[in-house]
Amino acid sequence: MTFETLSTNRSFGGTQGVYAHDSAETGTRMTFSVFVPDHAPGAKLPLIWYLSGLTCTHANVTEKGEFRRACAELGLIFVAPDTSPRGDGVPDDAEGAYDFGLGAGFYVDASEAPFARHYRMRSYIERELPALVGNHFPVDMDRQGIMGHSMGGHGALTISLRNPGRYRSTSAFAPIVAPSQVPWGHKALGGYLGQDRARWAEYDACALIDAGARLPDLLVDQGEADNFLAEQLKTYLLEEACARAGQSATIRLQPGYDHSYYFISTFMADHLAWHADRLK
Amino acid sequence: MTFETLSTNRSFGGTQGVYAHDSAETGTRMTFSVFVPDHAPGAKLPLIWYLSGLTCTHANVTEKGEFRRACAELGLIFVAPDTSPRGDGVPDDAEGAYDFGLGAGFYVDASEAPFARHYRMRSYIERELPALVGNHFPVDMDRQGIMGHSMGGHGALTISLRNPGRYRSTSAFAPIVAPSQVPWGHKALGGYLGQDRARWAEYDACALIDAGARLPDLLVDQGEADNFLAEQLKTYLLEEACARAGQSATIRLQPGYDHSYYFISTFMADHLAWHADRLK
Repeated sequence: MTFETLSTNRSFGGTQGVYAHDSAETGTRMTFSVFVPDHAPGAKLPLIWYLSGLTCTHANVTEKGEFRRACAELGLIFVAPDTSPRGDGVPDDAEGAYDFGLGAGFYVDASEAPFARHYRMRSYIERELPALVGNHFPVDMDRQGIMGHSMGGHGALTISLRNPGRYRSTSAFAPIVAPSQVPWGHKALGGYLGQDRARWAEYDACALIDAGARLPDLLVDQGEADNFLAEQLKTYLLEEACARAGQSATIRLQPGYDHSYYFISTFMADHLAWHADRLK
Repeated sequence: MTFETLSTNRSFGGTQGVYAHDSAETGTRMTFSVFVPDHAPGAKLPLIWYLSGLTCTHANVTEKGEFRRACAELGLIFVAPDTSPRGDGVPDDAEGAYDFGLGAGFYVDASEAPFARHYRMRSYIERELPALVGNHFPVDMDRQGIMGHSMGGHGALTISLRNPGRYRSTSAFAPIVAPSQVPWGHKALGGYLGQDRARWAEYDACALIDAGARLPDLLVDQGEADNFLAEQLKTYLLEEACARAGQSATIRLQPGYDHSYYFISTFMADHLAWHADRLK
């Protein structure tokens, strides 16, 4: 696992770095970014995982997420992984579509050929990358929060629901909440896991909540002008699942906001403050 | 001058738009972005011009500048033009270099063939675009500030120095302060204006100050780890010119910071607050 620093830039009184390593899980070189605020020597800081959406790499939120000021003020380390394996030999969508294959790992461990070898984003995010980050950065692994956008919101919700107690705080921007019930999810879960829908449930936030998984709390912001809201996101399904389960959740609809980083950046500092409150 | 809205996105309680129009000055279609915070009906807001650096379009600062939160809080309209004419028939650097031609208009009105026809960024920024912005957006043209980065810092300084009283506030990130004395400037001013260096002086901030031009005040931030500092930026020349002239100026060297938007975004809110103080 050769760890390499690709770049570091001073920003907001901290260091924004981009790093790469050979992943045993995905069998590829993986790139991710980490922001580390200046801190007292020897201090260990809480960390926030940010999982990105379809088509993204680590770079989108790193450049456009506007998280550094808040992370510096709140003393949070911010880690942004890639959204899929990449490179020669990694199979892509047969037609090169944006919603499957490269840039669209959906945070699953694939079981179906030809994807099973490299598409292991669940294990990568749940196990391999945390170990690497814990070894190389001044993080307090007892104080982790997780958040994400769209497909990455799906990732944040499902990973947190499957690992009770690991993440003290969970939030999402415009998450896919019920992939079993929408076209993006049908394509991705069907392609990576096969057509037995019983195997999809552990990758479906609403199904996990219905099956008894719980979070300490949950914050979601969703733009009302989001083009994907009606067909792919269906936020009301999460509201209904939380209501059925008695799951504490703050789910806010934001008038006028769309699916872009113009929306995410607007509410980023608010989410980070919410996480920080739960990580102190 | 057909004015067109290319996109609008709600962000930070305002509207981030991208617009295009046919420019009479450049003879090309020009794209620019405008952020308008929500405001009382009929209100006219102060506006900030942001001039970008080499290779940039309006998009760089619009995506990575982190200006919207501060503009929304301070009630500032933020306008980001392109850095050169573009399109079929617009001559570029003979070897396609990044520091001349497309993306490198240097905010001059060119006199030399083949650039004189289209490269009229001075008149575009000083006259044509302000008239357009004044017609289409709720701006108070008596309360304008101007800022820029690198080549755009050069643009902001020289445009403000040549138009006393028009801009109540002027600031820059890592500006080119004396193009007559550095390689970027030799190439650009020589190429656009010819080799008679007397004609360069009106496009050289230090020369303008030496010739008696003054600003009410000036704020500059410069990263000490900026790769261009020693050869191209030479901030000390501005410090010396201001000292000779008795020009009020705050010129800050920021340890560890480089030339990127990781630097700019760090100090953006601070600059905008400084402008707002002078625009109230």
